[in-house]
Amino acid sequence: MSVSRDELLKEVDTVCAAHRQQGSLVQCLTNPVVPQFTANVLLAAGASPAMCDNTHEAAEFCAIADAALVNLGNPTGDQLEAMNIVAECAAAAHSPWVMDPVAVGVLSYRTKFAKDLLRFAPTAIRGNASEISALAGVGAGGRGVDSTDSSLDAIDAARQLAAITGGIVAASGAVDVIVSRDTTITVSGGHPLMTLVVGTGCSLGALVASYLGAARRAGCSDLSAVVAAHAHAKAAGAYAAEQTTLPGSFAAAYLDGLYVVARDGFGKTVTIDQP
Amino acid sequence: MSVSRDELLKEVDTVCAAHRQQGSLVQCLTNPVVPQFTANVLLAAGASPAMCDNTHEAAEFCAIADAALVNLGNPTGDQLEAMNIVAECAAAAHSPWVMDPVAVGVLSYRTKFAKDLLRFAPTAIRGNASEISALAGVGAGGRGVDSTDSSLDAIDAARQLAAITGGIVAASGAVDVIVSRDTTITVSGGHPLMTLVVGTGCSLGALVASYLGAARRAGCSDLSAVVAAHAHAKAAGAYAAEQTTLPGSFAAAYLDGLYVVARDGFGKTVTIDQP
Amino acid sequence: MSVSRDELLKEVDTVCAAHRQQGSLVQCLTNPVVPQFTANVLLAAGASPAMCDNTHEAAEFCAIADAALVNLGNPTGDQLEAMNIVAECAAAAHSPWVMDPVAVGVLSYRTKFAKDLLRFAPTAIRGNASEISALAGVGAGGRGVDSTDSSLDAIDAARQLAAITGGIVAASGAVDVIVSRDTTITVSGGHPLMTLVVGTGCSLGALVASYLGAARRAGCSDLSAVVAAHAHAKAAGAYAAEQTTLPGSFAAAYLDGLYVVARDGFGKTVTIDQP
Repeated sequence: MSVSRDELLKEVDTVCAAHRQQGSLVQCLTNPVVPQFTANVLLAAGASPAMCDNTHEAAEFCAIADAALVNLGNPTGDQLEAMNIVAECAAAAHSPWVMDPVAVGVLSYRTKFAKDLLRFAPTAIRGNASEISALAGVGAGGRGVDSTDSSLDAIDAARQLAAITGGIVAASGAVDVIVSRDTTITVSGGHPLMTLVVGTGCSLGALVASYLGAARRAGCSDLSAVVAAHAHAKAAGAYAAEQTTLPGSFAAAYLDGLYVVARDGFGKTVTIDQP
Repeated sequence: MSVSRDELLKEVDTVCAAHRQQGSLVQCLTNPVVPQFTANVLLAAGASPAMCDNTHEAAEFCAIADAALVNLGNPTGDQLEAMNIVAECAAAAHSPWVMDPVAVGVLSYRTKFAKDLLRFAPTAIRGNASEISALAGVGAGGRGVDSTDSSLDAIDAARQLAAITGGIVAASGAVDVIVSRDTTITVSGGHPLMTLVVGTGCSLGALVASYLGAARRAGCSDLSAVVAAHAHAKAAGAYAAEQTTLPGSFAAAYLDGLYVVARDGFGKTVTIDQP
Repeated sequence: MSVSRDELLKEVDTVCAAHRQQGSLVQCLTNPVVPQFTANVLLAAGASPAMCDNTHEAAEFCAIADAALVNLGNPTGDQLEAMNIVAECAAAAHSPWVMDPVAVGVLSYRTKFAKDLLRFAPTAIRGNASEISALAGVGAGGRGVDSTDSSLDAIDAARQLAAITGGIVAASGAVDVIVSRDTTITVSGGHPLMTLVVGTGCSLGALVASYLGAARRAGCSDLSAVVAAHAHAKAAGAYAAEQTTLPGSFAAAYLDGLYVVARDGFGKTVTIDQP
C-alpha cells in the first residue's frame, strides 16, 4: 500500500537520526574515476568507505560491510567477477546493495551485464533518467555518461523496474524521482553545478547504500532511506551553491555541505513531494 | 605551407567559439592517478569525459566519442589492448586522437609501445620536452615523469615527430612549443604552481582532444585546436595564481579558472607567438 | 643502543633540511582510492611521485626511484606481483621501501600476503594500531580500514614487528607511535579532521618513503626519517585546522599546509617525545 507523504517524512527523520548516530560501512565496487571522491563523500556524510573490489576478498568483506555499491562505470574482467560475488552474497544475506547502471543503454556489454545482475534483486537502483529507462528496456540510453531525458519522463520506466526487482528505483536529476512498487516520490533542490563535478552521481549511489544500512538498523523502510540519501545530497548541493559559483571550489564546498547538513539538518532548500 | 600568426589567431578564436558552443565527448584511456582530475578539467572547460578503457567496450565507445586520449602513464595488460583498439578505431574513422607519452624514454616497455602506436598516426602528441625528444629518438628521457629539458630544446625533435606522424606535436612546459609539419608556435603564460598539481599535464592531453573535436566540427585546423587547448590551460593557470600561492588551493582554483576563461575569454595573460 | 630525544631532534632537523633541498622520487604501488591525493601530497611536500605498479616496468623503475611504497589497500593479481617485485628489488639494492598493511587483520588474503612480504624486511611499516597489532599477530584487526585500537596500545606489537624486520614500525593515530628495535618515539599534533579526508594515512606512507630517501642521502637514521615524515604530516594537519573546520576545505588546506611547513618549518604544533 502506498505510504502518505507525512508518514514518509516522519520515517525520513528517523532514518536520518539513525544515520547521524552511526553511518554504515559501505563496500564500494566502483569505476576508477570516482573512488577518492566517493570515499570523501561517505566520510563527510558520517559513513565509512571501503573500496574492496578484488576477487580474493570481495565475499569476505561483504560479510563485514553494512551495505554495498555496485557501480558499472567501467567494468573490467576481475571487477566484473567481484560484482557478481558481492551482489550474490548481499542478496543471500539480505544485506542492502545498490546498483548504479552507468551508461547502460549506451554500451551493449554493460547493458547485458546490468540486466543479468537484476537477478540478485538490488535493494535500490540509482541512475540518471536515460540509464533507468534503458535498464527497463524502454529507452535508447544517453550521450556517453550523460542523460538525454528528464527524470520525470522516467517515472513509468522506474515503476516497471521496481516491479521487476521488488526494490527501490531512483532516477536522479534536477528533480530526483524515487519509486517503490506502490509509491512515487520527488526530491527537489540542489544546484546545476553538481553536474560539473565528477562523481556527484556515482557517490550518491554509495550514500544510498549507507542510508539503507542505517534504515535496516532503525527498522525504517528502504524507500525512506533512498529518499533521505537523495535529500542529503541535494541539501549539500544547495549549501555549496551558497559558497561559490565555480566548479572547482564547488567540489570542496559540496563535501563541506554533506558534513554540515548531516550535523545541522537538511534545512529548507530540499522539497520532498508526491507528484 | 606555413600559416601566419594572424591567420592562426583568427582560427583559434573560431575554434574557441565552437568549443564554447559545444565541448566534445572525449574517451579517455589514462593512468590511474588522474582520471578524477581529468574528468573535472573536461567538465569545467565545457566538455564531456568518459573514461571507457576496457576491452569489452573500447571500440563501441570510440564510435560514439568525438575524440580520444591515450595516456601511457601506467600501461597494464588489459588497458594496453584497449589503447591499441582505440587508436586503430579512431585512425580508421578519421576521428581525432591524442597520445600522451608519459615517461617515454625512462622506461623501455612503454617506449617501445609508444613507438608502435605511432603507426596509427596520432592527430596530436602532447608530452614534456624529455618525452617528446625520447619519442623522436633523440633524447634519453627525463627523471621519472618529470622533464629534464626545456621545451624550446625540443623543437627539432617535435618537428621530426610531426614529419613522421603528419600530425601536431606539443612539448608542454613553462613555454609550450607546438609544431605542425611546417609551422612552430609557442604559447606562454600559466604559472609554476601548475607543476605541483598532479594531472595538469595529463588533463591537458584530454583538453587537446576536446578542442580537436570542436575544430573538426568548425572546419578549423588541428594546429589551431592544439594551440587553443594549451592557451586555455595557461589562462586557467594564470587565473588560479591570482587566487592563491599554495598548491592545494591552486588545484581547485585551476578548475575554477578553466570554467571562467571558457566563458569570459583567455584574457591577456597568454601569449601565442612564432619563435 | 637507544637514541636520546635531543640526539633524535637534531637528526630530524638534518633530515628535514636534506628533504627540503631535494625530495625523493618515490615509486608508489598503492590502492586505487588514493593515487591522486598521494601524488599531490608528495608534490606539495617537495617530492616526486611515480605510480608505476605494472609488472612490465616495476623492476626497471625501482632501480631509478629513491624509495618505494607498497600499500595493500586493494591488492589485485597484477599489482600483487609488482609488489613482490618491488619489495625484492628494493631489498636487494638496499633501497628504502615502506609497507602499509591496510586492513590487515580484517581480511585473510592480504593478511597472509603482508606477512609473506615481511621476508623482504621493509625499511618501515606504517599502519594504524589495529593493523600493526594484527601484522604482529597479537590483534584481530579493525573495522574495515579503520582502527579500533589506540596507537599507544600498539607499542608492544610495534616492538615485536620491529624485532622481526629490523626496521622502523609506526602506528599512526591521534598520537603516532614510532619504534625502532631499541627506541620508542611519539609524535603528537594534527587534528581529528584528518580522519575525514581519505588518503591522509595512505599518503603518509609515501611521505615516509620520501624522507627515508633523503635520510640515506644525508647519512641520517631511518628512525629520524620516519619521525620527520610523521611530524611533517601532523604540522600540515594543524595548519589546515587553522584554516577551516570542514572536511572538503580541509583536504585542500592540508596540501597547502604540507607546502607551507616544508618551507617555513613545522612550528610549535608538533611534539616529538619519548613515552
